[in-house]
Amino acid sequence: MFQHLFYSNFTKQLCSDERLIATLLAVELALMKAQEECGILPKGSHATVLRLLPDFEPDIEQLKEEIPLTGNVAAPLVKQLISFVSKSDPEAAKAIHLGATSQDIVDTATVLKIRDFLKWWNHRVTMLQAGLVKLTQKHRRTVMMGRTLMQQARPITFGFKTAGWLRGVQAATHHLKMAEDQVLCIQLGGAVGAQNDFLTGEVRLAFAENLGLRDGPQWHTQRADLAAFASALGICAGTLGKIAKDITLLAQTEVGEVFEPTTKGRGTSSTMPHKRNPVLCTSILANVHRIPFLVATILASMPQAHERSAGLWHAEWETLDRLMGLAAGALERSIELLDGLEVDVERMYANIHLTQGLVFAESVSFALAAKIGKQAAYRWTQDACKKATEEGVHLKELLRESDFGLTTIEIEQLFEPDRAIGKSLQVIDEILQKYEDKL
Amino acid sequence: MFQHLFYSNFTKQLCSDERLIATLLAVELALMKAQEECGILPKGSHATVLRLLPDFEPDIEQLKEEIPLTGNVAAPLVKQLISFVSKSDPEAAKAIHLGATSQDIVDTATVLKIRDFLKWWNHRVTMLQAGLVKLTQKHRRTVMMGRTLMQQARPITFGFKTAGWLRGVQAATHHLKMAEDQVLCIQLGGAVGAQNDFLTGEVRLAFAENLGLRDGPQWHTQRADLAAFASALGICAGTLGKIAKDITLLAQTEVGEVFEPTTKGRGTSSTMPHKRNPVLCTSILANVHRIPFLVATILASMPQAHERSAGLWHAEWETLDRLMGLAAGALERSIELLDGLEVDVERMYANIHLTQGLVFAESVSFALAAKIGKQAAYRWTQDACKKATEEGVHLKELLRESDFGLTTIEIEQLFEPDRAIGKSLQVIDEILQKYEDKL
Amino acid sequence: MFQHLFYSNFTKQLCSDERLIATLLAVELALMKAQEECGILPKGSHATVLRLLPDFEPDIEQLKEEIPLTGNVAAPLVKQLISFVSKSDPEAAKAIHLGATSQDIVDTATVLKIRDFLKWWNHRVTMLQAGLVKLTQKHRRTVMMGRTLMQQARPITFGFKTAGWLRGVQAATHHLKMAEDQVLCIQLGGAVGAQNDFLTGEVRLAFAENLGLRDGPQWHTQRADLAAFASALGICAGTLGKIAKDITLLAQTEVGEVFEPTTKGRGTSSTMPHKRNPVLCTSILANVHRIPFLVATILASMPQAHERSAGLWHAEWETLDRLMGLAAGALERSIELLDGLEVDVERMYANIHLTQGLVFAESVSFALAAKIGKQAAYRWTQDACKKATEEGVHLKELLRESDFGLTTIEIEQLFEPDRAIGKSLQVIDEILQKYEDKL
Amino acid sequence: MFQHLFYSNFTKQLCSDERLIATLLAVELALMKAQEECGILPKGSHATVLRLLPDFEPDIEQLKEEIPLTGNVAAPLVKQLISFVSKSDPEAAKAIHLGATSQDIVDTATVLKIRDFLKWWNHRVTMLQAGLVKLTQKHRRTVMMGRTLMQQARPITFGFKTAGWLRGVQAATHHLKMAEDQVLCIQLGGAVGAQNDFLTGEVRLAFAENLGLRDGPQWHTQRADLAAFASALGICAGTLGKIAKDITLLAQTEVGEVFEPTTKGRGTSSTMPHKRNPVLCTSILANVHRIPFLVATILASMPQAHERSAGLWHAEWETLDRLMGLAAGALERSIELLDGLEVDVERMYANIHLTQGLVFAESVSFALAAKIGKQAAYRWTQDACKKATEEGVHLKELLRESDFGLTTIEIEQLFEPDRAIGKSLQVIDEILQKYEDKL
Repeated sequence: MFQHLFYSNFTKQLCSDERLIATLLAVELALMKAQEECGILPKGSHATVLRLLPDFEPDIEQLKEEIPLTGNVAAPLVKQLISFVSKSDPEAAKAIHLGATSQDIVDTATVLKIRDFLKWWNHRVTMLQAGLVKLTQKHRRTVMMGRTLMQQARPITFGFKTAGWLRGVQAATHHLKMAEDQVLCIQLGGAVGAQNDFLTGEVRLAFAENLGLRDGPQWHTQRADLAAFASALGICAGTLGKIAKDITLLAQTEVGEVFEPTTKGRGTSSTMPHKRNPVLCTSILANVHRIPFLVATILASMPQAHERSAGLWHAEWETLDRLMGLAAGALERSIELLDGLEVDVERMYANIHLTQGLVFAESVSFALAAKIGKQAAYRWTQDACKKATEEGVHLKELLRESDFGLTTIEIEQLFEPDRAIGKSLQVIDEILQKYEDKL
Repeated sequence: MFQHLFYSNFTKQLCSDERLIATLLAVELALMKAQEECGILPKGSHATVLRLLPDFEPDIEQLKEEIPLTGNVAAPLVKQLISFVSKSDPEAAKAIHLGATSQDIVDTATVLKIRDFLKWWNHRVTMLQAGLVKLTQKHRRTVMMGRTLMQQARPITFGFKTAGWLRGVQAATHHLKMAEDQVLCIQLGGAVGAQNDFLTGEVRLAFAENLGLRDGPQWHTQRADLAAFASALGICAGTLGKIAKDITLLAQTEVGEVFEPTTKGRGTSSTMPHKRNPVLCTSILANVHRIPFLVATILASMPQAHERSAGLWHAEWETLDRLMGLAAGALERSIELLDGLEVDVERMYANIHLTQGLVFAESVSFALAAKIGKQAAYRWTQDACKKATEEGVHLKELLRESDFGLTTIEIEQLFEPDRAIGKSLQVIDEILQKYEDKL
Repeated sequence: MFQHLFYSNFTKQLCSDERLIATLLAVELALMKAQEECGILPKGSHATVLRLLPDFEPDIEQLKEEIPLTGNVAAPLVKQLISFVSKSDPEAAKAIHLGATSQDIVDTATVLKIRDFLKWWNHRVTMLQAGLVKLTQKHRRTVMMGRTLMQQARPITFGFKTAGWLRGVQAATHHLKMAEDQVLCIQLGGAVGAQNDFLTGEVRLAFAENLGLRDGPQWHTQRADLAAFASALGICAGTLGKIAKDITLLAQTEVGEVFEPTTKGRGTSSTMPHKRNPVLCTSILANVHRIPFLVATILASMPQAHERSAGLWHAEWETLDRLMGLAAGALERSIELLDGLEVDVERMYANIHLTQGLVFAESVSFALAAKIGKQAAYRWTQDACKKATEEGVHLKELLRESDFGLTTIEIEQLFEPDRAIGKSLQVIDEILQKYEDKL
Repeated sequence: MFQHLFYSNFTKQLCSDERLIATLLAVELALMKAQEECGILPKGSHATVLRLLPDFEPDIEQLKEEIPLTGNVAAPLVKQLISFVSKSDPEAAKAIHLGATSQDIVDTATVLKIRDFLKWWNHRVTMLQAGLVKLTQKHRRTVMMGRTLMQQARPITFGFKTAGWLRGVQAATHHLKMAEDQVLCIQLGGAVGAQNDFLTGEVRLAFAENLGLRDGPQWHTQRADLAAFASALGICAGTLGKIAKDITLLAQTEVGEVFEPTTKGRGTSSTMPHKRNPVLCTSILANVHRIPFLVATILASMPQAHERSAGLWHAEWETLDRLMGLAAGALERSIELLDGLEVDVERMYANIHLTQGLVFAESVSFALAAKIGKQAAYRWTQDACKKATEEGVHLKELLRESDFGLTTIEIEQLFEPDRAIGKSLQVIDEILQKYEDKL
């Protein structure tokens, strides 16, 4: 049930038993091929196994029974494969999994899974960024309140806010790219990682090439690159959480500035027909909330004892699947969320005026600073704000009544939202430019 | 695949979609019944729905489609139920879910799930404790090394060690019992938790009685009791981790004092036929490693906004399932582990003598303290240990050569393991007595 | 600097080096006394050391130098104490720390620290609860919007909300009490926890009595009770976070229903003189955010190897200090926050009407359900809400225009906030009653 | 007290109040300078403030009082600075902090702190790596047992193990370098991050140049780069934990292969004079255990609301300090640990023979595979191992008795440790070569 609320179909597939088995077998095949290419094995076995493979139907029940005995999936699967192949070709069967250890197969399969994940992810992040660019361009000049510590502060534009989201996604994506560069590396070391006559340097290289992965020394108990992938994904999730958090706040009844896209039935309440619940944001926030704990699980798994850990390696498996699943779910929903986001430009404008000019206090303070000094300006403005609040008058009136030598036009301009957005437009352009430069 | 390695069949069932649906429906029925009992509803609808229920087959595909729209399972399920019932009896259909909100149903169903879990858990913890009692009694006098900071320290008995495990399990179980006392409480409050004419205090009480749960005010955004359950389960898991950690260390090739029970094929390595891998411990340690992060996820979900959180409530669902699943898996394996634990009493004894008497240094130091003062005794012993190590002689020899007025028999006794176990036996008896007192 | 923003003076004191040293020494003294009382030691040494103690000035620099050598504070401190005492009375010096190990002293001192902490905490929680009771009584009938998923949902009263906070604090406090009952227990076991001739059962009992702690078997590597204390404190913090979260949301400029107490200068912004930042909430939320991770650190430290862990025990020390410090800081600020909380009753009332009657849709839906069935009523209301929103008319108007046989008075009543608060008042009374029953 | 056990003097300094104040002031100065350079301010104020600064003594008590009112350190400090400067030069005072917000100053100061930290760290990591290279070269051929799942598996060399450590440190260091490239960026945006007339793009650039940092758009609520730094540091810590974990295991009394460097008094026990506790490892493991939870705190702080978060930003401050402190402590101790690590080459060799040839089973199995096929070879070896264990004979004997056509020399060679280390030497050379290539 939760699958449809939190995850994506892609990762359901990606982390399925069927896909795991297929990937493990692909790794075994790539190893045989590499060993033949390097003359470690006589030619032929790989072709034989490859030919027989379509007819190999692993006995899943048997697998499930044996996994708890060996502690991993690879060992009993290899056993079944050897048994299956040896019925047709005992010689070819002998050539399977030669010199390798289960961790070689499992770790390399994990890397292939990560590669598939990243291909999917990178494509969708591009879509997300394109959506953010579009939103930013459209709302470049849509003035709204900026808010700090949950208080209205100074006006910005909605495009400035979405450009910030884009900047965040870009930064996170950069870190994921850096992690990708390292993590897509084979693991091949045999029993204790030290390789052997069946796993020479040449074999390692050929194995890597066969799988389209980087070659590199064993990382069986050195999990830095895996942890970097997990962390970077956690960082990506954090930026999605920031977007969902902002939208949830902006969609509050009392703020009402943006709304999730309308889909028949979504966000309605069973008992309150008038509500428009931010259901997409809710799912995204739920996922993003859980992810740092999964990343920490991976980080805490790093000190793996000796040449294979009793437990910490195993703790990674499901954690990684879950991490990719939750992150993918958050990303998919974020794209949908931004794609049809409804923006109430008028409400944004109206909200600026809720405080009777108080949010322009900084402009007033700055303007006065030039006349009476920063501290004095600050104090006058503070007092005026207090008075405005207590007496229910507009700050503009109090400024008019005072005599600091400001003209009526100057005073009016201090309270024009468009003039109070600072360098929002320049910042937007800078971020969009950086985005284009990266493409 | 991971199901068989890390989890138990029980929690797979317990957290299945079918069970979830059945429990949600049971909660709805209990509410209808309560409302009829209190005269809120005319009698009859509950009986009708109860009668029709066996023929109700939820459209799972439809459910999966609608869950993302409403953000929870209860709403679309209720919709289907109403639609199904109204075909036979439109009046009865109107009586379903009256005044309730989805969270009432989901939270109460969660509590029922926890109750089933605890029933299963408590039964198995009793088995685990019985196993520990048996082990402790059997090895009450089996002398072995106590180790601190991974160094041999002073002899204890293996029964002392297992009594410690028992003490830990008992302490953790107590905390779980305290949490159980609070958490098994209905949630019934309607839209914002404030109840309404369909959810009177009387209805709440009847609802609780129908389900065999405690009545109490709403906890829709007050998750302390749920968090206490999660924490207590985490504490239980921690005590299992302690057991598995110790056994893994004791099963090291170089220590070789205990071994996991032999089961055909378990713990063998695909490439090293001589190995006897602690596979059960590995699974337990992997689970226990992940659990604190799940507990923290629940704790971090506590500050739930207003009258229902957008995300933090949702983050609890799978986290709790996972937590119960991993803990149950660890418990099941711990029982199996202790049940057939192989103890090499001779190796334990042999290991005491590895250091040529050095582990009796404290006894020597204590004995000398009475003669020459604590500091002097400590210094002499430290020097003697150093000398013994460097010259490869037994500490006993150095003591004999010195002249502190100890008789030969006194010296011999200082190096008798049985005499060096402190009050191990008394501590064991104390813990066993406490255990029996609790029964 | 952070001390004043996040912590309390009490925990700064409690966790200071001076206090730590004093507590460690008190534990040593209590042990000597116990050993004398039980005839293990000749009478007199304890009195001597007690008499000399006021003149004992530990060489802090020396301590700091030696702590990294022994890995804990107790060992080098004892060494200094013995050296100091032996100058006056070598015999008494020999009687210090007899049979004990550093962990005995450190763990028992930790328990004493926790006891002091709980005394402070319990007192302040009583104050917090009293404040919540007062707020609840005062605002029992102050109608405001209840909000779910950050959307206005149905009216409640502010007293209902604060009663919920009280319920949460009570529940969390119960769990802390349960933990307190277990954790205040001595640790006394010697080198490997198995006790010895200097640490008999009788000595243990006397030691416990001297310190006013429970007696119980060793928990040197069984940390369940400590973990339960940490968890319960984390749960308490979570309930404080819930309060601060709600207040922060209610204090938003666009909501404006409650404000932090006004203190000269607090919550003002250096650049925006009109702002009223929720500074207390900010500190509370920052602390509460960090706490689950500290609790998890303690939980993850549970599987401590053998008879003393190399690292996991040590990881607890600062983590516990930090946990108590952050929790105490959050509690102190919560009391201040609630004590002077400003409630804008009129704004609460005004916000109910923001949606032109839509928030009464459930009442309408319920009223119509009796006439046309639940589903039809729901559908009509949903359509009417949509129409009301689109056409900017009040839902009341649409209901008037329809003909469901509702009188004008009935229609008016459906939109009276006071009538829409469900059983808020009963729930409040129930919670207050429970609170009084507990006193 | 804990300072000396877990931290380093460097980070104590780095995170001190004095240093924080100095850095905040440096940031303010850099901003004034930038504004003058860009013609935003008339020349002179910066020089004046710079000249006066040495006499500025912040009133620490006042600061501590005001921090809780403003929620950060920058605001009250700036206030004091302005007040101090205005006594000498009111015009210059007006030019301080112009257009900036507290977060600009605090975040930029944090980045400067990180820069100083990284400078220190990178230097020490180079030392650590050099130590690992030396160890690896020295023990390139020192044969020892490789261990998987805490069982002896196949021989490796100690140099292979340390080369693995080096590989891990290198990988982690690479990720830290990638994070460093991004995180050393100014934060300058004013009240809501959108900049203003005092904070133009030109000013930003000059500000960055004055501080030697990267220029870039605001990241006030986009914390990806900060989170990447925290994660990378966590990964570095994980690799240190791996080293300490291995050494702790190898230093067990029953293994006895390596020992921490001997320092007078370190690792001795107060009650067991013979012990040699791995005190450095204990500190490292304690720190490394806590770090993932701190990293997760930072990750979980990412979804910061609107233009400044009420709580999540504040939760970062101490967490980052603590993270750097614990990591630095672990690094410093790791260098000391490796620098004087004592390696017992003979014990390593002796331990290989503990199992009477069983650890060579894989070699036997491989050799037989060529004769009788992989599965048959595996089965024979497994049976032989069982028999060898039960009957207490050397595996070599059983092989001799069988008739697989192996010569006596061939059989002897199968049991030569030097021949059983696989490609350990090649892997070492590959890792060392990579290390040199990076220099």
